[in-house]
Amino acid sequence: MGAPFFKEIRRAYGFDEVAIVPGLVTINPDMASTQMTIGDHAFDIPVLASAMDAVVSPSFASLMHKKGGLGVLNLEGIYTRYQDPYTALEEIASAPQAEVTALLQKIYSEPIQEHLVGSCVESIKKTGATCAVAVTPQNTKRLTPVAVEAGADVLVIQSTVTTARHVSRSYKGLIFAEVIQQVKVPVVVGNCVSYNTALELMETGISGLLVGVGPGAACTTREVVGVGVPQVTATLDCAAAREEYFKRTGKYVTVITDGGIRTGGDLCKAIVAGADGVMLGTPFAQAREAPGGGFNWGMANSHPELPRGTRINVGTRGTLKEILYGPTSATDGTQNLIGALKVALGMCGAFNIKELQKAEMIIAPSIKTEGKIFQLARD
Amino acid sequence: MGAPFFKEIRRAYGFDEVAIVPGLVTINPDMASTQMTIGDHAFDIPVLASAMDAVVSPSFASLMHKKGGLGVLNLEGIYTRYQDPYTALEEIASAPQAEVTALLQKIYSEPIQEHLVGSCVESIKKTGATCAVAVTPQNTKRLTPVAVEAGADVLVIQSTVTTARHVSRSYKGLIFAEVIQQVKVPVVVGNCVSYNTALELMETGISGLLVGVGPGAACTTREVVGVGVPQVTATLDCAAAREEYFKRTGKYVTVITDGGIRTGGDLCKAIVAGADGVMLGTPFAQAREAPGGGFNWGMANSHPELPRGTRINVGTRGTLKEILYGPTSATDGTQNLIGALKVALGMCGAFNIKELQKAEMIIAPSIKTEGKIFQLARD
Amino acid sequence: MGAPFFKEIRRAYGFDEVAIVPGLVTINPDMASTQMTIGDHAFDIPVLASAMDAVVSPSFASLMHKKGGLGVLNLEGIYTRYQDPYTALEEIASAPQAEVTALLQKIYSEPIQEHLVGSCVESIKKTGATCAVAVTPQNTKRLTPVAVEAGADVLVIQSTVTTARHVSRSYKGLIFAEVIQQVKVPVVVGNCVSYNTALELMETGISGLLVGVGPGAACTTREVVGVGVPQVTATLDCAAAREEYFKRTGKYVTVITDGGIRTGGDLCKAIVAGADGVMLGTPFAQAREAPGGGFNWGMANSHPELPRGTRINVGTRGTLKEILYGPTSATDGTQNLIGALKVALGMCGAFNIKELQKAEMIIAPSIKTEGKIFQLARD
Amino acid sequence: MGAPFFKEIRRAYGFDEVAIVPGLVTINPDMASTQMTIGDHAFDIPVLASAMDAVVSPSFASLMHKKGGLGVLNLEGIYTRYQDPYTALEEIASAPQAEVTALLQKIYSEPIQEHLVGSCVESIKKTGATCAVAVTPQNTKRLTPVAVEAGADVLVIQSTVTTARHVSRSYKGLIFAEVIQQVKVPVVVGNCVSYNTALELMETGISGLLVGVGPGAACTTREVVGVGVPQVTATLDCAAAREEYFKRTGKYVTVITDGGIRTGGDLCKAIVAGADGVMLGTPFAQAREAPGGGFNWGMANSHPELPRGTRINVGTRGTLKEILYGPTSATDGTQNLIGALKVALGMCGAFNIKELQKAEMIIAPSIKTEGKIFQLARD
Repeated sequence: MGAPFFKEIRRAYGFDEVAIVPGLVTINPDMASTQMTIGDHAFDIPVLASAMDAVVSPSFASLMHKKGGLGVLNLEGIYTRYQDPYTALEEIASAPQAEVTALLQKIYSEPIQEHLVGSCVESIKKTGATCAVAVTPQNTKRLTPVAVEAGADVLVIQSTVTTARHVSRSYKGLIFAEVIQQVKVPVVVGNCVSYNTALELMETGISGLLVGVGPGAACTTREVVGVGVPQVTATLDCAAAREEYFKRTGKYVTVITDGGIRTGGDLCKAIVAGADGVMLGTPFAQAREAPGGGFNWGMANSHPELPRGTRINVGTRGTLKEILYGPTSATDGTQNLIGALKVALGMCGAFNIKELQKAEMIIAPSIKTEGKIFQLARD
Repeated sequence: MGAPFFKEIRRAYGFDEVAIVPGLVTINPDMASTQMTIGDHAFDIPVLASAMDAVVSPSFASLMHKKGGLGVLNLEGIYTRYQDPYTALEEIASAPQAEVTALLQKIYSEPIQEHLVGSCVESIKKTGATCAVAVTPQNTKRLTPVAVEAGADVLVIQSTVTTARHVSRSYKGLIFAEVIQQVKVPVVVGNCVSYNTALELMETGISGLLVGVGPGAACTTREVVGVGVPQVTATLDCAAAREEYFKRTGKYVTVITDGGIRTGGDLCKAIVAGADGVMLGTPFAQAREAPGGGFNWGMANSHPELPRGTRINVGTRGTLKEILYGPTSATDGTQNLIGALKVALGMCGAFNIKELQKAEMIIAPSIKTEGKIFQLARD
Repeated sequence: MGAPFFKEIRRAYGFDEVAIVPGLVTINPDMASTQMTIGDHAFDIPVLASAMDAVVSPSFASLMHKKGGLGVLNLEGIYTRYQDPYTALEEIASAPQAEVTALLQKIYSEPIQEHLVGSCVESIKKTGATCAVAVTPQNTKRLTPVAVEAGADVLVIQSTVTTARHVSRSYKGLIFAEVIQQVKVPVVVGNCVSYNTALELMETGISGLLVGVGPGAACTTREVVGVGVPQVTATLDCAAAREEYFKRTGKYVTVITDGGIRTGGDLCKAIVAGADGVMLGTPFAQAREAPGGGFNWGMANSHPELPRGTRINVGTRGTLKEILYGPTSATDGTQNLIGALKVALGMCGAFNIKELQKAEMIIAPSIKTEGKIFQLARD
Repeated sequence: MGAPFFKEIRRAYGFDEVAIVPGLVTINPDMASTQMTIGDHAFDIPVLASAMDAVVSPSFASLMHKKGGLGVLNLEGIYTRYQDPYTALEEIASAPQAEVTALLQKIYSEPIQEHLVGSCVESIKKTGATCAVAVTPQNTKRLTPVAVEAGADVLVIQSTVTTARHVSRSYKGLIFAEVIQQVKVPVVVGNCVSYNTALELMETGISGLLVGVGPGAACTTREVVGVGVPQVTATLDCAAAREEYFKRTGKYVTVITDGGIRTGGDLCKAIVAGADGVMLGTPFAQAREAPGGGFNWGMANSHPELPRGTRINVGTRGTLKEILYGPTSATDGTQNLIGALKVALGMCGAFNIKELQKAEMIIAPSIKTEGKIFQLARD
């Protein structure tokens, strides 16, 4: 044993394994800004809602705008396949667990209708909200022109793993640089987890990068195909690429950690790991206003041959306002996410997100010990 | 992946992950001293009771003095808000779990009455006990003069995260050097977890430093805002600052590990990590004489918008005397804490706390294996 | 403590502790080949079925061939001890748990009949399938000639731990180089877990190497005798030996990770760790066509004095076709193993197994957190 | 954070965190010797039974001799306090759990009777067995002469933590060098866990060293006083001291790992970590012939003020012969310990214990995953 190595393997970390170290200076939370920008759009809070059917409907996108964030509408989901999406949503919510994968496979086999793409975008725009839409690389050329013409402000091109170079027999690999030149809106691309891929994607001219493949411990992508990188390490690496790209070109790409964030603590850790913003699915699927009715599921669940994940009963935890801003009597970190972010900014002496990225982080596994109790400190 | 790093992250350790290595010399426990000093006050045992309403009432503070330690009275809790605090304590103890956060929010919205500050201090002093009181930085200027005039011996200024430099819009940041010059009693400040912050706080002239932010695994501060450092690493770092400051100035600042200590083993490990003393909350909330009646809660639980933690049913485990000195038939380390400390002093050949700090420590995670049993050695 | 070390101990990793990092380039899964070769035999998929009585009967071996893989028949099990093996199989399946070890001991004490060895091989060959048979070193000289004469195509010589140099009083240690010269078919040998042993075995002229001793967490060999190496590290080391041996001689030995693989994710990780193929037991014992009838057990279970492991109720999960190729509605990774492998090939931009071996791998423990849910990404 | 360190902390390992790597050569188990020597006494198997009242009675000591090992009789337990020890044993076995600590405290407050010391030794000697007796340092001078005169062959001086230099006010610290010169039998001393202490103890002239303080995960000494070192690291360090001492002086001290060993796997790992032998308590308390009647407890449990551990219901698992040599149908490693040792010797190509000490060891945490099953390999 020993002798020559076949390959090096590096340790990677997830949210549960790290913690933030308070700063040398502290500030009052009310002095800190939580602003994020994507291209020329500024947002009061660094939070996007995931392009999942159970999370973002056109009306939820509008609500996210009112609360200061950005909801991303999935252009390949129920809303663009059905004139009346709510019947399909209700079918999913009421199906027995054993039949839900088959049902999802059936519901998502209905074709996407381009006129619904346009009307979804318009219904968001007419409320005055910033409109972000998501497509997969395969459908980008077909759906993007319709969406942008209808007024979409931000284009998200997303697949499980996205690289600047994709080889395919069935369709010509999407050249991001071309897409970006053609559409006049900022483009966010993902998902990505490593330094070199992030750098190559940034070189195509993107405005934002989604970070996260198989995030978190119970992630099905890791079980099924073994692929995935924990979010703290993935974010650290993509943030390093952003810094490098900025140093070379002067252009700043927004890094958005996408997936695996359940609490205010996770959100703060993502930013200390280098994120400019975060994208949340399940926490918003738990909002009273979410279209999923207390359930959540992903597009990979409807894969006809290799489904990954399933419909999850996430329950309803409060209004979107309570989830983002409180007040709350929940003490597990799942509500008042922005309040938590402000406290972390204060404890780290950070006046904004960019300064919070500079806070120190340690590796400190959170071992849950039953019945263990701790001193509950004062503010 | 790989290439340049965004930031370094260091491994940190908690009590459950380390153990003490016996010494090259052993001594009989009865030859060892457990003394601790804060400023010019000496204490037989290196133990403080936390400034929590469920732990330290004026009469409990007096009892702690009789047993050789120091109870710290919270000047911003029930005892200074209510002429009759016991009705409020009973209300909290009897509230259903679902309503307790709202109740705490209501009870702690009652204003602090300065005349009760004075009478609390006096009631402790008239029993002959050393009187320590705790305030937050925000209320230090207002409450301290009243308390000191009434006879307080030790002033504790405590918030979740305390630094020598705090920036605030709503009140002028407290300058510790000024406070320390004005009050004539030793000042203990906290909480703090890192070398540089500890050093800066020591440079303001403090007599003692409280170590611990979000200690322990299940700590809510870590869940809610992601901030926290495990106690062994936090203590090691603050002790390093104490040594450095002593080398530079000849002044010795007492380092007190505060939070996350449940057993005699934890207490001993805190000292081997460099603490001069420890502050305990829950272990004393479990004393028959504790005012919480078998419950414990922290001030952060009553935060109107972002409560962290909740009321915990800690039960009653014995008298304060049994918890500190035994005898006991409990074998889980939660009783006879000082007996345990003496055994550790003996096993490490340490004649006092200062020598125990020099013992060797190893990283040795305690994996609980169900049904696992071990040889039970003899003394 | 400290000072001179008695010995170095190196960290080793298992499947649950690592994950695969996506590539800089991605490809469409349908462009990737999953081919594996052993000697001059090529297989469509890099998968062998274990030489266990509950997994491979002559008819299951034939079915594996039809599906593109290779089933290995155990020449020292029930099929060569009983004219009617199915009665014995049914006895095992229906025995109460408390009596099963004794029953296995009794059933496996019946002598091996050489004429059954021949007829088993012939019954596989006449279906047109490639026929692989397994023997232990002790019985190699006696059983191999019969099997090869009857038409066996691949010879597997397997024991818990196999080295090129075995010292024995009771029988002359098997010299692999001699066996390999005599038999005209490719020889696969194992099991082995370390670089030097792998290299020595390769120097005897073998065509394939089985990797794995006490793989996985709950493995009984590790409990009973303390011996075992987790599969990722074992595979990395044996793959390093294969590279070294190829560099020296130009001969390529097929490295097959054997044991501990339960999901598509595990299979993909084995290959990224350097395997050319994998050998699966329990996943195939769960096939509707498996002879074990929903149970599995190993030969070590029938050891008369030191049984290791027991009969396990593995249940029936689907047809062999579903387990290998789907479609499936299972989302835990136990079905559509080849579909998963193809997705991993795509995500890593690998056109074949050899290229997938070059993918990056990270250490990322999968901590199962109850109730934790994650973003479910889209393809 | 960061900057100067207060102290270094080294990672230590226990049995559950390591595994043995098979050797480059394998041998048939029947060619290997399991012999151990202590001073001029040779034993067929490297196994001692702990000086615990529930494990070794005079008749059990005699039985251990017949089986090739060595039972150590506790000279400060029930057998030397009561003419009729069996009544006390039965009282302990039948006491309700809540009252057992108090009962142990009462039973062990009865004084030791010197004439019973003599008669215990004689009753062992007259069966022809090698007689080993254990005393604490405090009672060594008083009890040793009686025991040696009665015929004791090996003297064990044991306390939780033993060093060559002990400082005491109440009795003059035992000088081992003096004791060793006076008694004419080999002396075994312990317990000890570190290199320097081991070396100092060896320099006093001892023949054997017991290794282990607070071994194992659930050990109460670690909970109560925080002191303890996992057994693999402790053994590695003490074995390093033995090698160093042998190099300097040519004298070989037997290193015996004491505590935390539950399975054949643990036993083998202790030896690969450098032990010449092991001392077992609970595995033998589970023997049908053990005096504890299915229970076990340690002397520390009867400490009047700080009990550590409690009476444990260990059950009865088989005869001593079955536990040591099988045959067994248990598959969890708790039976046929010597059979397991022989298999490990074979897998590592070791002809004796000394050669097994040279086997390679890896760090490989055994994560128990419910429902996980693995390939069960063949011998």
